Amino acid sequence: METVPTMSPEATLERVLGFFRRASPAAVGVGSFGPLDLDPESSTYGHITSTPKLGWRQFDLAGTIARALAVPVGIDTDVNAAALGEGRWGAARELSDYLYLTIGTGIGGGAVVGGKVLHGLVHPEMGHIRVPHDFSRDPFPGSCPYHGDCLEGLASGPAMERRWGLSADEIPDDHPAWDLEAEYIGLGLATWVCTLSPRRIVIGGGVMRRTQLLPLVRRELRRQLGGYIESAALSGDIDRYVTPPLLGDRAGVLGALVLAERARGREDEESTSSGPEEA
Amino acid sequence: METVPTMSPEATLERVLGFFRRASPAAVGVGSFGPLDLDPESSTYGHITSTPKLGWRQFDLAGTIARALAVPVGIDTDVNAAALGEGRWGAARELSDYLYLTIGTGIGGGAVVGGKVLHGLVHPEMGHIRVPHDFSRDPFPGSCPYHGDCLEGLASGPAMERRWGLSADEIPDDHPAWDLEAEYIGLGLATWVCTLSPRRIVIGGGVMRRTQLLPLVRRELRRQLGGYIESAALSGDIDRYVTPPLLGDRAGVLGALVLAERARGREDEESTSSGPEEA
Repeated sequence: METVPTMSPEATLERVLGFFRRASPAAVGVGSFGPLDLDPESSTYGHITSTPKLGWRQFDLAGTIARALAVPVGIDTDVNAAALGEGRWGAARELSDYLYLTIGTGIGGGAVVGGKVLHGLVHPEMGHIRVPHDFSRDPFPGSCPYHGDCLEGLASGPAMERRWGLSADEIPDDHPAWDLEAEYIGLGLATWVCTLSPRRIVIGGGVMRRTQLLPLVRRELRRQLGGYIESAALSGDIDRYVTPPLLGDRAGVLGALVLAERARGREDEESTSSGPEEA
Repeated sequence: METVPTMSPEATLERVLGFFRRASPAAVGVGSFGPLDLDPESSTYGHITSTPKLGWRQFDLAGTIARALAVPVGIDTDVNAAALGEGRWGAARELSDYLYLTIGTGIGGGAVVGGKVLHGLVHPEMGHIRVPHDFSRDPFPGSCPYHGDCLEGLASGPAMERRWGLSADEIPDDHPAWDLEAEYIGLGLATWVCTLSPRRIVIGGGVMRRTQLLPLVRRELRRQLGGYIESAALSGDIDRYVTPPLLGDRAGVLGALVLAERARGREDEESTSSGPEEA
């Protein structure tokens, strides 16, 4: 595995393409920061769209790689790629309906519904849902530049750091930060259980590495649902229902392999249906 | 069309079965109040589960009809049936990813993802998501017996009536109730756009019959999203994106026809794959 920092598109791609030229892959899978255009009918399919990251706006990420390497490229958001990885080899194996969440520098969610990654109009932006925020208990206004106190603005790693003056790594186990954090994440989970009805929730990311947090999150999810949705998953089996990833930080990279494999499969299908190609 | 009030399961089914015996259907579709067990692997598939409605708890609704009429029965929640109806003949025709919502005596949502109704673990209970609730502006504690001020507890028809002392039919057009109602519904829509990324939102139900409400809801949805999700659907095309149903109160009944058709199709498939049946 090789890590390349995110610089300008040109500088980053030069190093990424260098790596892949040495590897001579049959296909490439990309799990990228977003937002991305993932509509296969769109003329800007595979482009990064409205990111605040300088120089990347409207960059044709999938097309640049495909043209440079002359291989099929599969692309999805980073969190959707991680969801695919956990579904193939990790904590959501053999499930057709599940939710993968990451709570770290941002909050993101990838939903698999009926065995397929949910995209719809664009792709989900789950971290940006609004949740109840009691200013008398938590006067922190939130850190999201778009929404202030959306879930990401209240409960991402940077939000914790700005609220408490300590990073999530530094906050002691017995600090009240963790009950508040669990409450916000639990509110998010309850919203997604009511909306997506997943068969499992896999929840990772930097903040969740503080392992005392997960039991608090499960407790908050049950408290928020108030017994309304009857399922063993939400009572006796909740430890299996809300579960850490098995692949850790490698979920995204392994999920990108699934994207590569599918891109290659699509190409094979197209060659078969349109006859053998010359090139 | 014939309307039978919901009485005890026995009294209700007697009249329903009487109607169907006269009609001699090839299959029956049921869009029912829930919660329902919709897991085809479950021994209680097609049963009503944890309802507070007296006598209906654990009632085998689909099985009772199937045995009495000796026909295949398709079953789903009332709101999912309505979603199917609007997808086949109504405001979501030819869309594979959309959301149908009803704001009335309760709040419910049916999501179609990748051309299929989303079920997952149980089925969604979208009305029970939590949204921000500013008690200083709206001291009403909410009317949901499970969650108090979940979305349904704040914005259903009964919630409006308890807050204002007037039913949604009686509240004047220029009453501040409508801005508050639009704010809550807009928060719900923003949550679902961030989570499900639907290609269209069809929104009906008794409260939405007050037609001045829909433009306010569209405005609130845009305000809540704060420009974060870039799509023409959420800017210039928002009037088409958030749209009233075309089938009105008949969406559920027409959707039940789709359920009946599918139940018959499954039966045909099974007979074909296991050889012709004797009976």
